[in-house]
Amino acid sequence: MDLHGTFHVYDTTLRDGAQQEGLNLSVADKLAIARQLDGLGVGYIEGGWPGANPKDTEFFRRAVQELDLRHAKLAAFGSTRRAGVRAADDPGIAALRDSGASVVTLVAKSHDRHVDLALRTTLEENLAMVRDTVTHLREEGQQVFLDAEHFFDGYRANRAYALEVLRTAYDAGADVVALCDTNGGMLPGWVADVVHDVIETTGVRVGIHCHNDTGCAIANTLAAVDAGATHVQGTINGYGERTGNADLVSVVANLELKLDRQVLPAGLLRDATRIAHAVAEVTNFPPASRQPYVGTSAFTHKAGLHASAIKVDPNLYQHMDPVGVGNDMRLLVSDMAGRASIELKGRELGFDLSGDKDLVTRVTNRVKAMESRGYTFEAADASFELLLVEEVEGVRPAYFDVESWRVITETLNNRGVDDEAVSEATVKLKADGVRYVVTGEGNGPVNALDQALREAIGQAYPEVAKFELIDYKVRIFDQGHGTDATTRVLIETSDGESSWVTVGVGHNVIEASWGALVDGMTFGLRRHHSA
Amino acid sequence: MDLHGTFHVYDTTLRDGAQQEGLNLSVADKLAIARQLDGLGVGYIEGGWPGANPKDTEFFRRAVQELDLRHAKLAAFGSTRRAGVRAADDPGIAALRDSGASVVTLVAKSHDRHVDLALRTTLEENLAMVRDTVTHLREEGQQVFLDAEHFFDGYRANRAYALEVLRTAYDAGADVVALCDTNGGMLPGWVADVVHDVIETTGVRVGIHCHNDTGCAIANTLAAVDAGATHVQGTINGYGERTGNADLVSVVANLELKLDRQVLPAGLLRDATRIAHAVAEVTNFPPASRQPYVGTSAFTHKAGLHASAIKVDPNLYQHMDPVGVGNDMRLLVSDMAGRASIELKGRELGFDLSGDKDLVTRVTNRVKAMESRGYTFEAADASFELLLVEEVEGVRPAYFDVESWRVITETLNNRGVDDEAVSEATVKLKADGVRYVVTGEGNGPVNALDQALREAIGQAYPEVAKFELIDYKVRIFDQGHGTDATTRVLIETSDGESSWVTVGVGHNVIEASWGALVDGMTFGLRRHHSA
Repeated sequence: MDLHGTFHVYDTTLRDGAQQEGLNLSVADKLAIARQLDGLGVGYIEGGWPGANPKDTEFFRRAVQELDLRHAKLAAFGSTRRAGVRAADDPGIAALRDSGASVVTLVAKSHDRHVDLALRTTLEENLAMVRDTVTHLREEGQQVFLDAEHFFDGYRANRAYALEVLRTAYDAGADVVALCDTNGGMLPGWVADVVHDVIETTGVRVGIHCHNDTGCAIANTLAAVDAGATHVQGTINGYGERTGNADLVSVVANLELKLDRQVLPAGLLRDATRIAHAVAEVTNFPPASRQPYVGTSAFTHKAGLHASAIKVDPNLYQHMDPVGVGNDMRLLVSDMAGRASIELKGRELGFDLSGDKDLVTRVTNRVKAMESRGYTFEAADASFELLLVEEVEGVRPAYFDVESWRVITETLNNRGVDDEAVSEATVKLKADGVRYVVTGEGNGPVNALDQALREAIGQAYPEVAKFELIDYKVRIFDQGHGTDATTRVLIETSDGESSWVTVGVGHNVIEASWGALVDGMTFGLRRHHSA
Repeated sequence: MDLHGTFHVYDTTLRDGAQQEGLNLSVADKLAIARQLDGLGVGYIEGGWPGANPKDTEFFRRAVQELDLRHAKLAAFGSTRRAGVRAADDPGIAALRDSGASVVTLVAKSHDRHVDLALRTTLEENLAMVRDTVTHLREEGQQVFLDAEHFFDGYRANRAYALEVLRTAYDAGADVVALCDTNGGMLPGWVADVVHDVIETTGVRVGIHCHNDTGCAIANTLAAVDAGATHVQGTINGYGERTGNADLVSVVANLELKLDRQVLPAGLLRDATRIAHAVAEVTNFPPASRQPYVGTSAFTHKAGLHASAIKVDPNLYQHMDPVGVGNDMRLLVSDMAGRASIELKGRELGFDLSGDKDLVTRVTNRVKAMESRGYTFEAADASFELLLVEEVEGVRPAYFDVESWRVITETLNNRGVDDEAVSEATVKLKADGVRYVVTGEGNGPVNALDQALREAIGQAYPEVAKFELIDYKVRIFDQGHGTDATTRVLIETSDGESSWVTVGVGHNVIEASWGALVDGMTFGLRRHHSA
């Protein structure tokens, strides 16, 4: 079944989602998110605006080389040609053409006043810009979608012109025209009316792009689909400017699980919770616990009152089986790790736990206890694997025995606020029977600890010279209680061939970092010693 | 105009909202929230379930004495009488009767299987329980609303019985029957169909109570109103079990500002942002920045591209005037920052830069240069304001002169990897002509620095005792080059009345934190000294 031909699930996390206040994605972040989106099975991943800034240009260069997309096509976003220039001569269009993306999504003005005020050109020239750009890119072999910016406001202001923009794009060869509620003020009934009218009047294939300013982005998207739209745009976790874009997971879950429209490859929605959380780790925005379908609280019940009835028939108390989106029903407080997901995760790491109920119970309980202290194993596979190995083999893998450590950070030249600071760490440990006391320096405390630790165990294990700390993330909990906050650190370590993520938790950020560092070294050593 | 007679805005934050995971309200908290809700002008405040727990009983005792409600009536929530007992003899009913609330909202089963499994009684006895309880409370002089629990699922399972429950309550004297989507799985079209059918078939006055499990709580509520419901239930900030209840502020804002239905006393919606944030302070859940209408990001724009058009007509870029809900348009100074957006941002902060082209150029260039080093000013208004003041006045505001600082972090008992760590910071600075050398302790290095800095400048500026570090965020850049990574720290400082965000950047995380800390203190001191 050619799902993507009949219905488009189009993700714009990397472009419109990245407009969210405080969200700042590196090229590596964008590549990591794209892999997750492909795992979810979306049809299109809008990667950014090549040519508009060096980061997006670099993303497309690397995406084309490095991403081995199984489900999604890569889409490049950009605007129509500038006024008074041939499309073929416009360097902005060249950047889209040469991006390596098979799809180009062109944003065009469809609101007459925006043409005047923002583009500063005539309504006729704007139509020509749409026509020429679509025609040119089609001739160059790319699939073209049109994002009709401010469409709903434009439709109210000048319906005839707004429709003319759509017709022009469609006649020139655009496959879809997406109606954008750019300012986000629409309600479902209005969206439905406009989509109906557009389809009836123009016959174009309609897509929908909603923002959540009225709290109705998801419902507006569904209303458009009900009225005939066959292309939905949104972002993972609803990231986006202002109140965000339509949360693509909720839109898809509603379509598949409530409205019986299969829009992703079968079965992939069952990974939605894991993927939504993995993306949240990359963005470094804490996942919203109340998020529909994938939030950690989404299927949580205060079981007290109805526990027995829940046991008899859980479906009396939940609107769907959470397995459908990879989430879990939770009773009482505690975490999201149920036995089933522990088993699943074990299998993923190469451990078959299905035969040992006690073991699964032990691991589940320990994960729950640790997650309640602030650990997360969702993103820290390596720390989870160490925990699993410890429970399976009865002893935690250890290649060295730490006695103590200390870090000093101070200003370099005593010039005060603008001065650079340096760190010095001393680590005392035993490795392979020998005691080492090593001092390392670094431009940060974690870096200094990493240097000292690496040098201290390097005598016994020369392979650690290849290990490199390649990513470091910090999250603080219990904000509002600054001094008692819990800190979680995620560290990614690479050996040049692959990388692994470990987690550390503590009241002290350095203590949390140390835990993650030690796990990172231990995991790497174990892998090399068992290879 | 008797607004509350024609349309009910019914808040259940204190009862259903308090079911949210992690939410724990004291009696004092509930009283404080009730005052805020009354200030918003809601018609009804559901205070809890008197008799079910001592806290709720106490709340009603004190609410009746202490709350001087100007707009709202107090509603007590409770269930119908137990099976096989006279309403007048049921202690649960007595608690409702004696609560002092003028309104009782009775929850009743309307889903046949729930009657069987959870109530363990017959369908006939359930109807008698509804009839007797409503009749009794009406005779005792209270207004009665009925919450028909699991109504939408019950309607699907056994429409005739679900409708019979409504009819029974209405005939016995209930003023409203609220249809509850208790499990939260509905979509707007379905809600509309059911509400239509209920009103046509039974003629009862319909209320609506939605949860957000499909992400459609707000749209579902609006769909019910469009179909004839004249009573909407919801919670401030959408608090509630699982994915939460319908966010009452968004519902009301959509009704008043989008659908032209005045449902609160005129003008009160203009306090919505302040009230939503004040309630968030009480619940100790950080307000969601992306929340529709009242979120801090709800009217925020990355100004770069369209700044000149925004200047001409801001309404082209926002779905409504944020003043209508007491919010503000904010422009983010981002790496796309052009001169126009710097000017606009300056105006927002009270600086008219329009007359000084050179100044705008200097600020723009400095922001660009700093952002390329890792700074972000879009989240750090306070650091941006300090930079602006420095360029306008020719000298950076400074209340103290730092000589040097140092932090030591070490394991507490030399037990190695699982050990806790403590930090000690020494700061040397001059404030008001006096040199201070102060050592502070903390469970983390930033905390220790904060303590030492605060104490060192506290002699000269006692007002810093009120400043509190309430949020701390860390982001690492240039991953892939662990040792050369740049660290960005955002710190939010509060003086108990308002809060401000500052940014620090450095290769060393402690150095970056120090920069943000110093900016945070400086900004706070400047505000207090110019006030």
